[in-house]
Amino acid sequence: MRIAIVGAGALGLYYGALLQRGGNDVRFLLRRDYDAIMAGGLRVFSTGGDFHLARVAGFRRPEEIGEVDLVVVGLKAFVNDRYAELVAPLVGRNTLILTLQNGLGNEEGLAALFGPDRIFGGVAFLCSNRGVPGEVHHLGAGRILLGALCSEKMAEAEMIATVFRSAGIDCSAVSDLRKARWEKLVWNIPFNGICALTGRTVADVLSSESGSRLARNLMAEVIAAANAQGLSEPLAADFAARMITFSAGLGPYRPSMMIDREEGRPLELEAIFAIPLERGAMKGVPMPCVETLAGLLGLAVAVAP
Amino acid sequence: MRIAIVGAGALGLYYGALLQRGGNDVRFLLRRDYDAIMAGGLRVFSTGGDFHLARVAGFRRPEEIGEVDLVVVGLKAFVNDRYAELVAPLVGRNTLILTLQNGLGNEEGLAALFGPDRIFGGVAFLCSNRGVPGEVHHLGAGRILLGALCSEKMAEAEMIATVFRSAGIDCSAVSDLRKARWEKLVWNIPFNGICALTGRTVADVLSSESGSRLARNLMAEVIAAANAQGLSEPLAADFAARMITFSAGLGPYRPSMMIDREEGRPLELEAIFAIPLERGAMKGVPMPCVETLAGLLGLAVAVAP
Repeated sequence: MRIAIVGAGALGLYYGALLQRGGNDVRFLLRRDYDAIMAGGLRVFSTGGDFHLARVAGFRRPEEIGEVDLVVVGLKAFVNDRYAELVAPLVGRNTLILTLQNGLGNEEGLAALFGPDRIFGGVAFLCSNRGVPGEVHHLGAGRILLGALCSEKMAEAEMIATVFRSAGIDCSAVSDLRKARWEKLVWNIPFNGICALTGRTVADVLSSESGSRLARNLMAEVIAAANAQGLSEPLAADFAARMITFSAGLGPYRPSMMIDREEGRPLELEAIFAIPLERGAMKGVPMPCVETLAGLLGLAVAVAP
Repeated sequence: MRIAIVGAGALGLYYGALLQRGGNDVRFLLRRDYDAIMAGGLRVFSTGGDFHLARVAGFRRPEEIGEVDLVVVGLKAFVNDRYAELVAPLVGRNTLILTLQNGLGNEEGLAALFGPDRIFGGVAFLCSNRGVPGEVHHLGAGRILLGALCSEKMAEAEMIATVFRSAGIDCSAVSDLRKARWEKLVWNIPFNGICALTGRTVADVLSSESGSRLARNLMAEVIAAANAQGLSEPLAADFAARMITFSAGLGPYRPSMMIDREEGRPLELEAIFAIPLERGAMKGVPMPCVETLAGLLGLAVAVAP
């Protein structure tokens, strides 16, 4: 399958490398890593085994890649206003688009430009960080749940999941993409938010009773908002407890938003906080803890007036 | 009146200087500023007019001061475990003790050591910062509301207020000290907390709608908790709005907890957050926004495990 990776950060490089190793024709749209990867290939340091791709098809502009069968979008959600510029040149009549971005609103943004029928979304429970240019570090986990924006496109979602599984990626198609998105938010909202604001790792947060309680309180609000959205089935009663257990296993992990803040990038506050808060408010679900965290993050990163 | 100032930070130096200028025999327990003040006196830069006290009675140890008529406590609340060491040598049979510290629990801590009858508390709506040693900057406001821990000691509270007023300090005795304490918390909890956590000034917080809403949401929870405590009368319905207006007038003010964090000191989290949260919980008042802010502050300043 001919696959373009748009947004070749930690997530895009890692999954793209696995897809290429699995026999697909993968084309990476690169920016920071272009020179390093064209010179020395792409090196993956992974808890599942390190490997090196000596020859990688890297490009600086999407027009050089041309039409592909599948576009995998791994952009930061704060550059979604560049979808047209970065994705349109890759899209032909039968091209499918899979966004693995964080938060809510990504599929809708793509659908507005390319029509809803070809849009798929996935949530990746992946711990990975970029290394120096030409390197990516996979620290653990990596499961993808993906689904179609339009329910009648389940067969295509299954097909994409099969391609990913064939490349060794733990991937399942789900019938309710919105549910998967909200499940991921149950993790993203507390841990991206707390860690970005306080400069503490996941392990730091969970090392105190007050930190754990803070995470659980936030999770409870996200679950209540999720279960007011008319999902195919509610999030399970023990979902927060399972997320805490999963998170405790991550150790001193630094979530992406924490790294974004440390490196002076914008934060994905719209996709991870503002839109979920709107969706909760539309259903009358109070989310005071999430609103407080979001308000503090907004102040912390605001350009001083 | 012979007055000892214990905790000669921005608040203690400012009020102490006014009390001395007003003709009282003021004795300062000094630490950081001792050498500078003994050599060059104390210089007050104030919106009410600058002045310089050439001769100041400064001491390094409370035993050198001896018994006084009134002890004014301006310590950071996180050193309240040093009350016995720092205050006891100043206390004779008729000595009164006035704590102008932030938060809840201070009067009770003093009463446990020195008996409740002599304990008075005050809340200071003061904007002041320390300058270089030997200097203090009064940036605005300065009103004190003070009251007795024991309601039958109202006459003594009136007497202390008169001493303060005679020194040019805007000071009133109030019959319900707890109400004054909670009123101050309506300011301290949002602004000390938000500014310490985000590194933004009061003006920054109020410059955006989301920052103002965050402050108002926190204030609403503190007011609800206050009004569940059986105060002599409830906080007025427009109290939060008046606090926002007052705060907007402060400009780019840096609350004490923000400065404490920047300078690597502990934060007054127990007095300003933990005890008020406990008092709210005891009355069944939910305070999710305040709890979130307190939890984040606790993580932000925790010593990394």
